[in-house]
Amino acid sequence: MSGTIEARLKQLGIELPQASRSVANYVGFTALPSAPDARLVVISGQIPLRDGRPQHVGKLGRDISLADGQSAARLCALNILAHLRAAADGDLDRVRQCLRLGGFVNCTADFTDMPQVVNGASDLMVEVFGDAGRHARAAVGVNSLPLGVAVEVEAMFVLGNAIGEPRR
Amino acid sequence: MSGTIEARLKQLGIELPQASRSVANYVGFTALPSAPDARLVVISGQIPLRDGRPQHVGKLGRDISLADGQSAARLCALNILAHLRAAADGDLDRVRQCLRLGGFVNCTADFTDMPQVVNGASDLMVEVFGDAGRHARAAVGVNSLPLGVAVEVEAMFVLGNAIGEPRR
Amino acid sequence: MSGTIEARLKQLGIELPQASRSVANYVGFTALPSAPDARLVVISGQIPLRDGRPQHVGKLGRDISLADGQSAARLCALNILAHLRAAADGDLDRVRQCLRLGGFVNCTADFTDMPQVVNGASDLMVEVFGDAGRHARAAVGVNSLPLGVAVEVEAMFVLGNAIGEPRR
Repeated sequence: MSGTIEARLKQLGIELPQASRSVANYVGFTALPSAPDARLVVISGQIPLRDGRPQHVGKLGRDISLADGQSAARLCALNILAHLRAAADGDLDRVRQCLRLGGFVNCTADFTDMPQVVNGASDLMVEVFGDAGRHARAAVGVNSLPLGVAVEVEAMFVLGNAIGEPRR
Repeated sequence: MSGTIEARLKQLGIELPQASRSVANYVGFTALPSAPDARLVVISGQIPLRDGRPQHVGKLGRDISLADGQSAARLCALNILAHLRAAADGDLDRVRQCLRLGGFVNCTADFTDMPQVVNGASDLMVEVFGDAGRHARAAVGVNSLPLGVAVEVEAMFVLGNAIGEPRR
Repeated sequence: MSGTIEARLKQLGIELPQASRSVANYVGFTALPSAPDARLVVISGQIPLRDGRPQHVGKLGRDISLADGQSAARLCALNILAHLRAAADGDLDRVRQCLRLGGFVNCTADFTDMPQVVNGASDLMVEVFGDAGRHARAAVGVNSLPLGVAVEVEAMFVLGNAIGEPRR
């Protein structure tokens, strides 16, 4: 039975490319750990709000610099962590994995550096969680975002029980 | 071992913001229930089709009003529920949670009220499922959508077994 | 207790539409299999790279034809399979289901054939995995993508253990 799909690929004349090496703080794939307490958490798309007020309003490629875009992405990620802490009942040590970030960059039609912008969020995840912060990611450009902000980032995480907590 | 991540945050000089309070029918985060019968269901992006024909063709900020955009989002959500009923073998009482909505709003580059548009879908989920309808959400603008419709919405739900059905 | 949600729908005056029939290689919904070894895998958004170089740079509706867009989507899907093979420790026979594809098409504001473009990725999944390749899908237009490529596709799959491998 083994090798069925590989045989089909061969039959179709398909040779798979090498999986591209990651040159940043995100990775090609992530997997939900098989631990029985692993729990999927979805965090709503966050915008760069500080004290309830939108920061970094504008478009990459026109009125927001790459550095400002990265700051916007980092601020989105901080708001993600705030919700994640609430989801974990205040205990961020329960975070097993950052599974996915979805980054939307508000930009002009000729801007193409979304990956560098979204790195502002990706880098924070690895600063905070180490290897558990390495995530799968999609980064795309869009022509507009809520309140006119430069970046929106959504996320999926895996939470486990607290250390020492009996498995339930 | 406890407080490891909090210690790292402090070391990095990061103070997390307050998690923003939700002012609508979506929430900051959702989690897959840990019940053994909890089953993740993914619903394809739905457009505002009625009887197989696209409704609300056009762009927010140009030729579609906010109210029409909300109607479009609600119609997307009705199509989501149609697929969800099929996924639940006809028994919508098996729905445990609306985990996530992804809302794409076809709009001009200066339109910024996507959240209000996508509320047309979010509100329906809570009307129908009550608290189980409160979901995590991403709402973004895009410059075009299939068939030129104003809104597309995709979804993730959690289904359980039917009431009284033995766990499998 | 049965029929609670159906009763609420009736009370709200909502009659659900028929779930639209799929006319392509994607479907209205997918579900995570309830097998204990079913494991969710998330693949990062892939662009049409060949030997590390971007192919199909440009926008649908302006300088990329529908056929070229489909080739771009297929190339994204090949890169997805490369990462999936790595995620499965080299054994693609462990793939139980393609759960979701997310397709982003770089296009002009009046282009509306994203579904046909993303079919280039969807079709490959069914060629390779048969029924297990049928997936839920979102396909939207965006005004720009990394490196200026025409298409980006991300994915979620379900992996099981290898055939004959004891369940863990």
